[in-house]
Amino acid sequence: MSEINKTKRKKHSLSDSILRLEEEIAGKIKQKEKEKEKDKKKQKPKDTSHPKQIQRKKPSIKHNLSAVRITALGGLSEIGKNLYVIECVNDLFIIDCGLAFPDEDMLGVDLVIPDFTYLEKNRERFRGIVLTHGHEDHIGSLPYLLKKINVPVYGTKLTLGLCEGKLREHGILSDCSLNIIQPKQTVKLGCMSVEFIRVNHSIPDACALAVHTPAGIIVHTGDFKVDYTPIEGGIIDLARFGELGNKGVLALMSDSTNAERPGYTMSERKVGDSFRNIFGSAENRRIIVATFASNIHRIQQIIDNAIFYERKIALSGRSMINVIQKAIELGYVKIPGGFLIDIEQVNKYPPEKVVVITTGSQGEPLSALSRMSAGDHRQVNISPCDLVVISASPIPGNEKTVGRVINDLMKSGAEVVYESMYEVHVSGHACQDELKMMLSLTKPKFFIPVHGEYKHLVKHAQLAVKMGVPEENVFITGLGQQLETDGSSMKITTQVTAGKVLVDGLGVGDVGTVVLRDRKKLAQDGLIIIVASIERTSGRLMSGPDIVSRGFVYVRESEELIDKARELMEKAIVESAGGPISVMKNNIRDAMSDFMFQKTKRSPMILPIIMEI
Amino acid sequence: MSEINKTKRKKHSLSDSILRLEEEIAGKIKQKEKEKEKDKKKQKPKDTSHPKQIQRKKPSIKHNLSAVRITALGGLSEIGKNLYVIECVNDLFIIDCGLAFPDEDMLGVDLVIPDFTYLEKNRERFRGIVLTHGHEDHIGSLPYLLKKINVPVYGTKLTLGLCEGKLREHGILSDCSLNIIQPKQTVKLGCMSVEFIRVNHSIPDACALAVHTPAGIIVHTGDFKVDYTPIEGGIIDLARFGELGNKGVLALMSDSTNAERPGYTMSERKVGDSFRNIFGSAENRRIIVATFASNIHRIQQIIDNAIFYERKIALSGRSMINVIQKAIELGYVKIPGGFLIDIEQVNKYPPEKVVVITTGSQGEPLSALSRMSAGDHRQVNISPCDLVVISASPIPGNEKTVGRVINDLMKSGAEVVYESMYEVHVSGHACQDELKMMLSLTKPKFFIPVHGEYKHLVKHAQLAVKMGVPEENVFITGLGQQLETDGSSMKITTQVTAGKVLVDGLGVGDVGTVVLRDRKKLAQDGLIIIVASIERTSGRLMSGPDIVSRGFVYVRESEELIDKARELMEKAIVESAGGPISVMKNNIRDAMSDFMFQKTKRSPMILPIIMEI
Repeated sequence: MSEINKTKRKKHSLSDSILRLEEEIAGKIKQKEKEKEKDKKKQKPKDTSHPKQIQRKKPSIKHNLSAVRITALGGLSEIGKNLYVIECVNDLFIIDCGLAFPDEDMLGVDLVIPDFTYLEKNRERFRGIVLTHGHEDHIGSLPYLLKKINVPVYGTKLTLGLCEGKLREHGILSDCSLNIIQPKQTVKLGCMSVEFIRVNHSIPDACALAVHTPAGIIVHTGDFKVDYTPIEGGIIDLARFGELGNKGVLALMSDSTNAERPGYTMSERKVGDSFRNIFGSAENRRIIVATFASNIHRIQQIIDNAIFYERKIALSGRSMINVIQKAIELGYVKIPGGFLIDIEQVNKYPPEKVVVITTGSQGEPLSALSRMSAGDHRQVNISPCDLVVISASPIPGNEKTVGRVINDLMKSGAEVVYESMYEVHVSGHACQDELKMMLSLTKPKFFIPVHGEYKHLVKHAQLAVKMGVPEENVFITGLGQQLETDGSSMKITTQVTAGKVLVDGLGVGDVGTVVLRDRKKLAQDGLIIIVASIERTSGRLMSGPDIVSRGFVYVRESEELIDKARELMEKAIVESAGGPISVMKNNIRDAMSDFMFQKTKRSPMILPIIMEI
Repeated sequence: MSEINKTKRKKHSLSDSILRLEEEIAGKIKQKEKEKEKDKKKQKPKDTSHPKQIQRKKPSIKHNLSAVRITALGGLSEIGKNLYVIECVNDLFIIDCGLAFPDEDMLGVDLVIPDFTYLEKNRERFRGIVLTHGHEDHIGSLPYLLKKINVPVYGTKLTLGLCEGKLREHGILSDCSLNIIQPKQTVKLGCMSVEFIRVNHSIPDACALAVHTPAGIIVHTGDFKVDYTPIEGGIIDLARFGELGNKGVLALMSDSTNAERPGYTMSERKVGDSFRNIFGSAENRRIIVATFASNIHRIQQIIDNAIFYERKIALSGRSMINVIQKAIELGYVKIPGGFLIDIEQVNKYPPEKVVVITTGSQGEPLSALSRMSAGDHRQVNISPCDLVVISASPIPGNEKTVGRVINDLMKSGAEVVYESMYEVHVSGHACQDELKMMLSLTKPKFFIPVHGEYKHLVKHAQLAVKMGVPEENVFITGLGQQLETDGSSMKITTQVTAGKVLVDGLGVGDVGTVVLRDRKKLAQDGLIIIVASIERTSGRLMSGPDIVSRGFVYVRESEELIDKARELMEKAIVESAGGPISVMKNNIRDAMSDFMFQKTKRSPMILPIIMEI
């Protein structure tokens, strides 16, 4: 695949470049005109100290050939699918390549990936992918991108270890170039170089990046927190951030996930202390702990407690087994021989001799914990002999499903430990005081909050302004809005293609607005199909009309309604006979829709199917 | 309508009674057999101090004619649709008649009401409906019940005022008997009497009930909290609870909504203090406050602040306008003349002279605040001149929609105040220390936690046990499980019909499992219809097969896929020709389903429609 790409690259590079340059120039002229328009409109009665308002007051940048451009194709005004493009002259690379989980209105969609159009257009300048850490929202769409454009991937050992599994599943592992980088090492990507800096997070081997560019140093924190007592791997390299700050940081792109929360995030070690207490009080019950498979330090702490209390450890859930196997293989999880047992063996041991570590902490309907709670798990049958610990907070939107799992577990008699008061979970993201620390250390000229919904970005921007970053140097941008800096000033120059691509089964991008609108309508009130055969020439009714409904009413109990509808349909067909089929269909649709709304106050989808014979 | 009911009552009373008695006896025998079975199974290795485990250890009650029976038809192991049946000998009444909002898997359903079968079976003993307060989850299904059985309704002035609107909408107000009761007053219902006791809650005029029965006093708290500084209406009548406790309370049924939260709920007045600060800092911006329409004390505090800062008040949202109109009419909301303006007038005043009070604090998609955030509100256009306060906590499950509204408001430049740290909302439900206070005052012999999911009931039960109620006297029951007490003992005797009835448009109960399953399948992967006409006798294909899909793939971009499917279908029809139509349909369905899963990894609904001519 890489061979093919190279050939294409050569062929298209020149014409593509010219085309793009033209597009860019045209885009910039248009953008400037728009800005002027906007500036005129900006005569608001009050300054509301809203950082967004002031972004465009800067004098325009003199076009600089060494200018650096920063574009988010994902991760701004949304949680997930992080993808940031950094480019300078002839070189372009991306930071992270994540996926997002579908919103509740994306019915039937499995996952959401970024729109790669901009990268495809710039494939000949695309030097590589740099990954900050191995979470799905940072690596999940890697296979989809690499299938289109095969460029080298750089990341720490565990991050790439987790990528390997994905790429193998998609059948492209052997074609890919995965390059392991250690913290403190640097990768050269054309005229830029990327330095990996250790941070703490809820997965080992997470890094921030210092991007050394001709315009200056850009620090991208990745996901981070400050943990002075991490389980393994060392404390976030605060000194290096400080050193960079003293050298001069042009721009800081920093994690906004917890920007609404005051104070500091607790240390992961705190959770270990809670586990020690919970394990101590479990007595002769089995312990089941649900957590994220990727939270390897959390899992190590569960394992350590299991060993201390002489319990065997069983893993449940596909991702839990895959991730922990990989983590053991790479040396990130340590289990002494004989402690790990297969889940099939779990009932051979008395409850007090077992810990089950499982997926399902978010109440995902098909996860191992959900199946346990519903009595559907093949090996684990919940009873009053179980103590279940949910070592996670519900991600917003999952509160109800998590609550349902807790209720069901309790109904089977298990004790369930799940509240924040038990301290069985800590966040992996920096709270306000840690964010302030990052701002103090790096002292950036420009600040770009990333990773978060709009409200998180705004809070983070407000923090930065309080810390002394001038309001006009803070940029809350949207997806595809391109920031350009020459090292002395920064502004939004253009808008490139960016958005959501929906993945449903094997289909990437084939579920769009129309399909989703239909699914929503079908979900709401179901559908009614009116099917009839007519003679092609006369329009005479030969068979039907038959009425088929799904998801509308239970037909056996609504015979009268359906009978009346059939009469009405026959009338509509007879009256439209001889005219165009499209008119007949419209008449059928209107008559049925009116009738059903009047009778039921529902609006099912109406599908007239007329066969001409 | 009441006339008709009375006639029916006379005709059916004798035979119904006998039938019911037989059913009950049969039920009890069956139940006892089950219990014996269960007791045998209960030889668990450990006592896990789980109250549910011990419920059935009591010796069986000698059947007592004056026994009182308590049955929940709603409100246990769920939030909402509260309905508790209390009966003794020939008299039966219910406490509350609420609705619940549909779970996310009840696609297209508008609301959920209790199953009234048990009440219909016992209509001749049904003496009335007693309402604790005017929230939807306590009064919302009243019209649906009164349409079936018209009995007198008792409640405080505001509670009945809010019912009136509902009954008028359903066109049955003039047939209904609504009877206003003051706190401290008592209603006689056959051999029982019900005393109203003032409590604090997030709606005025909320009451607990003391049910005086031949077996003893049953206290039902309704929804309550303890507010020593309420806005109006006085403090919860703690003294009366204490007096009853000293007399002897047989059973306490108490609100479990906040049983997971330690400490005390803050006073509503706290919110007023926060509003004072927020209004003070609003300067020349318009203030928009979103809250629950029924939280009349909250709204009074907003009004008071508006008056203090000389701002006009406009209401937005249908329920806000309806409820506040009713509350003004009944004297629960006080606005000096000239302060209330129509929402149509809102743009005639400068921003600093206006407060808008609106619905939509839960991010409901069609609510006024959502429309404002989306730029769809006719009168209110959000800009940096707006300060929006969301004076509510998201109900679990609504976090994402509320977040979306906040993001959109911020994108329009408004400042949005929404976090708990601003103290712009307090709960209306008692936290653990208030629940303990209620237990201490009433000193009940038996304890029945109500209003809550299973996890809340369990926490509340654990609190009661800690407070000294013997474990075997604590009953966590399920919907329809009938508790019987003769004043000295209590046990579960039988299971009556109880469940969820789904309301969709005008249909009550016509959307059931089959319809919901179809809607879910349609929502997930859409549908494919294969339609063909065949000659009746030979089975020869006369027209088609045509393939119609909705919510599956965007057909224009998947022509090849659909073409291949059509070939496959033609083959399946030809091969099945001459045989039974059902076999042909099955062959079509299987072939299409396999083909599409293989090609797309999706499982749309497959509908073969074969017309015989």
